[in-house]
Amino acid sequence: MITPCKPENLSDSCKPVLLDVQGLVDTRGIALQNAGIKNVMMPMQIVQKNAAKQWVQACVSISVGLSAEEKGTHMSRFVTQLSQWQQRPVFSLALSDFLRETRQRLSSQSAYIAIAFQYFIDKASPVSQLSSPMAYSCVLKASIDSNDLCQTVLSLAVPCATLCPCSKAISDYGAHNQRAEIRADLLLDSTENHHEIWIEDLVEGLENASSCPVYPLIKRVDEKFITEKAYDNPKFVEDVARDAILFIRHCDAVTGFQLEVEAFESIHAHNAWARHTENFITNLSC
Amino acid sequence: MITPCKPENLSDSCKPVLLDVQGLVDTRGIALQNAGIKNVMMPMQIVQKNAAKQWVQACVSISVGLSAEEKGTHMSRFVTQLSQWQQRPVFSLALSDFLRETRQRLSSQSAYIAIAFQYFIDKASPVSQLSSPMAYSCVLKASIDSNDLCQTVLSLAVPCATLCPCSKAISDYGAHNQRAEIRADLLLDSTENHHEIWIEDLVEGLENASSCPVYPLIKRVDEKFITEKAYDNPKFVEDVARDAILFIRHCDAVTGFQLEVEAFESIHAHNAWARHTENFITNLSC
Amino acid sequence: MITPCKPENLSDSCKPVLLDVQGLVDTRGIALQNAGIKNVMMPMQIVQKNAAKQWVQACVSISVGLSAEEKGTHMSRFVTQLSQWQQRPVFSLALSDFLRETRQRLSSQSAYIAIAFQYFIDKASPVSQLSSPMAYSCVLKASIDSNDLCQTVLSLAVPCATLCPCSKAISDYGAHNQRAEIRADLLLDSTENHHEIWIEDLVEGLENASSCPVYPLIKRVDEKFITEKAYDNPKFVEDVARDAILFIRHCDAVTGFQLEVEAFESIHAHNAWARHTENFITNLSC
Amino acid sequence: MITPCKPENLSDSCKPVLLDVQGLVDTRGIALQNAGIKNVMMPMQIVQKNAAKQWVQACVSISVGLSAEEKGTHMSRFVTQLSQWQQRPVFSLALSDFLRETRQRLSSQSAYIAIAFQYFIDKASPVSQLSSPMAYSCVLKASIDSNDLCQTVLSLAVPCATLCPCSKAISDYGAHNQRAEIRADLLLDSTENHHEIWIEDLVEGLENASSCPVYPLIKRVDEKFITEKAYDNPKFVEDVARDAILFIRHCDAVTGFQLEVEAFESIHAHNAWARHTENFITNLSC
Repeated sequence: MITPCKPENLSDSCKPVLLDVQGLVDTRGIALQNAGIKNVMMPMQIVQKNAAKQWVQACVSISVGLSAEEKGTHMSRFVTQLSQWQQRPVFSLALSDFLRETRQRLSSQSAYIAIAFQYFIDKASPVSQLSSPMAYSCVLKASIDSNDLCQTVLSLAVPCATLCPCSKAISDYGAHNQRAEIRADLLLDSTENHHEIWIEDLVEGLENASSCPVYPLIKRVDEKFITEKAYDNPKFVEDVARDAILFIRHCDAVTGFQLEVEAFESIHAHNAWARHTENFITNLSC
Repeated sequence: MITPCKPENLSDSCKPVLLDVQGLVDTRGIALQNAGIKNVMMPMQIVQKNAAKQWVQACVSISVGLSAEEKGTHMSRFVTQLSQWQQRPVFSLALSDFLRETRQRLSSQSAYIAIAFQYFIDKASPVSQLSSPMAYSCVLKASIDSNDLCQTVLSLAVPCATLCPCSKAISDYGAHNQRAEIRADLLLDSTENHHEIWIEDLVEGLENASSCPVYPLIKRVDEKFITEKAYDNPKFVEDVARDAILFIRHCDAVTGFQLEVEAFESIHAHNAWARHTENFITNLSC
Repeated sequence: MITPCKPENLSDSCKPVLLDVQGLVDTRGIALQNAGIKNVMMPMQIVQKNAAKQWVQACVSISVGLSAEEKGTHMSRFVTQLSQWQQRPVFSLALSDFLRETRQRLSSQSAYIAIAFQYFIDKASPVSQLSSPMAYSCVLKASIDSNDLCQTVLSLAVPCATLCPCSKAISDYGAHNQRAEIRADLLLDSTENHHEIWIEDLVEGLENASSCPVYPLIKRVDEKFITEKAYDNPKFVEDVARDAILFIRHCDAVTGFQLEVEAFESIHAHNAWARHTENFITNLSC
Repeated sequence: MITPCKPENLSDSCKPVLLDVQGLVDTRGIALQNAGIKNVMMPMQIVQKNAAKQWVQACVSISVGLSAEEKGTHMSRFVTQLSQWQQRPVFSLALSDFLRETRQRLSSQSAYIAIAFQYFIDKASPVSQLSSPMAYSCVLKASIDSNDLCQTVLSLAVPCATLCPCSKAISDYGAHNQRAEIRADLLLDSTENHHEIWIEDLVEGLENASSCPVYPLIKRVDEKFITEKAYDNPKFVEDVARDAILFIRHCDAVTGFQLEVEAFESIHAHNAWARHTENFITNLSC
């Protein structure tokens, strides 16, 4: 068995005998846009709108551009950096710092990160005002290139309800409704002077586009209110998409977006769906 | 490179030089209930109620009991058998034949199979009578033991709609409703004289327990009918479960069951759920 | 629009006008084993072996038994309780307290909970001793019945590697190996005098049953060590299962178990699989 | 209850009384790129390289562009068309016909379809030449715009094995290897004179880029061959990506592509990953 050597001695005693295969020269002449790791689970801290930090259990991908000459990237360095960044709260503005460090650690021209996590927001029911945490699926993606140009995309999924305008119009009573999901990929302004954008505000704006938001904890007074609100506010997925687009267009920090609404129809086993893209030009893969 | 030998010569020329490690003796003294393979994709034929055969793209697990003396099972034999059975239509009654063959091929005391597939049924809308295929997730599981005792479980998932009785009762108008799913695991009578049980009949009986079935293809006349039917027929998941239980208890071929109903609530991001079990004593793992 | 009433006034002013439909009498004569909610996301605290508390983002199901007379259960009460328990660290011993409270809140005879979460353990690489968090999928399930009898099941999934003994034996060099997963459902001794069982110890014991553990952060010295250790330690899924069984049998706090090993074979697109059950008699659904 | 009216009479007797809400005018001034349905399950026929037709169980999305004036699309028409196309074998060349019909049925300027399916190919083991079906995940996507310009993307996922060159180089014996997946999104030449591209050929070309293909059915002679071949042919995900790129660049019918390779590392619980894009400019969403 190998005698364990301490980390600080790695470069002295162990490395010489262990060939750096990744560092060999490649002759195929193909530079790769991404070489890295996927599905690394890591505890991370996200900054909330109220300035507090929320611990999340993130699923992270990190990669760098690989020049045509390099055979492979050094994947352990991504985990080392990620592990060290556990204690540093991150949000969109911090990701360029993360990626500059990645680029340097890997001696690369470009770097990419995607952090997927569940983000909890305390949400009060509409009448009884009882509050409980509700989780939203988020992904924060960023890239940096050789010119230090950064791109950041915040993706989030907001569950809500839609009530069918057609069903309401043609039926003597009732109207079919269902759970739906609004999913937005928001390209964020990465210039110095932009304000941080908050998941809390985005969730509120997007769920306002639906027939009615969903809530984690409701009493009968809330259920009556929600039922009647949805009936008063019938919307196709196309309607939700359009109202969500109107909201997103007014978000200062958003320079482009991709939006989709999917309703898990209660009259079908398949889903109704609407999608739209505006100025969503990005090198960040989905 | 090895010179390829033809299959029929395997036992003569190749086997002698390649040690049968699986066939070695194990000394830990532990017999295992299942040793086999999972997630084998295979085209298979399922017998429909109308006697026609439906090709499905199945995801199959097969295993045998492993005696304490055997080191391992011979996994390629499962694929060989499965591959040969592609042309033989299967349904619950045929699985005991399959497993007797498995038991023999593997020289084992017991054998198990689970076949998961999507099963299509042509379904007509309630008013316009327009028909289109609708898929139901099914799993057919069977076991055979050393006494030739067989067990068969048919699992199926039936999408449907539920309309909330509370929401209807307390609201001035409307009522929240949503897509739901009825999932049943049915232990089938494996005695000689039982009649085959048909997925077509089970689907119809289970969806009748809901506020309203869902349909693949509906026109406005259907949508009006469905909307009003659901409103006239409000049910909690508990109600659906109880009515489904009443149906299942009257299925002659079913000797025990596990049933659950899950509604993807349009007022919450979480689901309402009810579950019940009766005489569901089986060695078939979930 | 309804004038919001404050939560403390709910019972006085609002309830009288809103019919309690769930509280109506049911006449079908069918008691249900479970009525409740599924997939509630909630931040929770898990007690670590070192006595510190770890925040996890749990996915929770809670239910109660429903007597034949009751039409439905009151689902908001589950969320209220869960929301209030965020601040109380839980582990297996605490779940009976949780369920006694659930039973009382819902006026039920029995109660059930399942808490699924990712649990992080700092794990050092075998030679360089570099440490980084690694996530393990866990589910903690518990039930309480009318006689105050409790059952607790801890489920966990441990990724690891297997190296094929057959491939090693018959090949002139090399041996196929792959990522695998050991999944155990452990029925815990629920008597007063049992010691807490720690996920940290279970993970270590189970991964010792594999050809080699997997690590979150490794350097070349570690990679050499891991490669050679796996080659020195070839195991079929059947071998891993048997060695894991030997380990579990020696865990004092475990009174029964279900164990499976699944290897994502690098020579097939399907998986090798072994499974075994001992004294695993439980009313906790999978 | 409504008296069912026959389909052919729908326009005469039923429509007048049931308002066409989707057909109302929208005033928000927002045209949507996609309005349609998702996750429709449907049996479909795919043309094989050998000219035979293979029945698959497809999961389909269809949508059209929605002009700023229209409130909503008529979703049942998608299902009607899809249902009627069951009997017509499809492949990339046929999709433009499908979409022209969709565009007309929905009176839209543009139309989109995505058909996800498992495609079976009989695959023989390398030495014993035993054959069994193996499934490949495929998605066929197409769009048509107002200028009758078509785009087609064929996506496929090819499981394979990678053996780590670093592990082989630094270890005294053995080398870690694992199952991996090559995923390609191929933008197809949609001009009249292009030849059909066959999944069979793409699978073969892509798996040749790996350390070794995986097989559905192998005997010991095959296992020895595969083990040694992978050891003789060590590749990082970066190597597989580059060799796959060289193959794709030589496919005449492919005008652009997105490629990724993900290896389910046997030394980590996370994955190694490489990705590259060339001339992949498309309006087809992922």
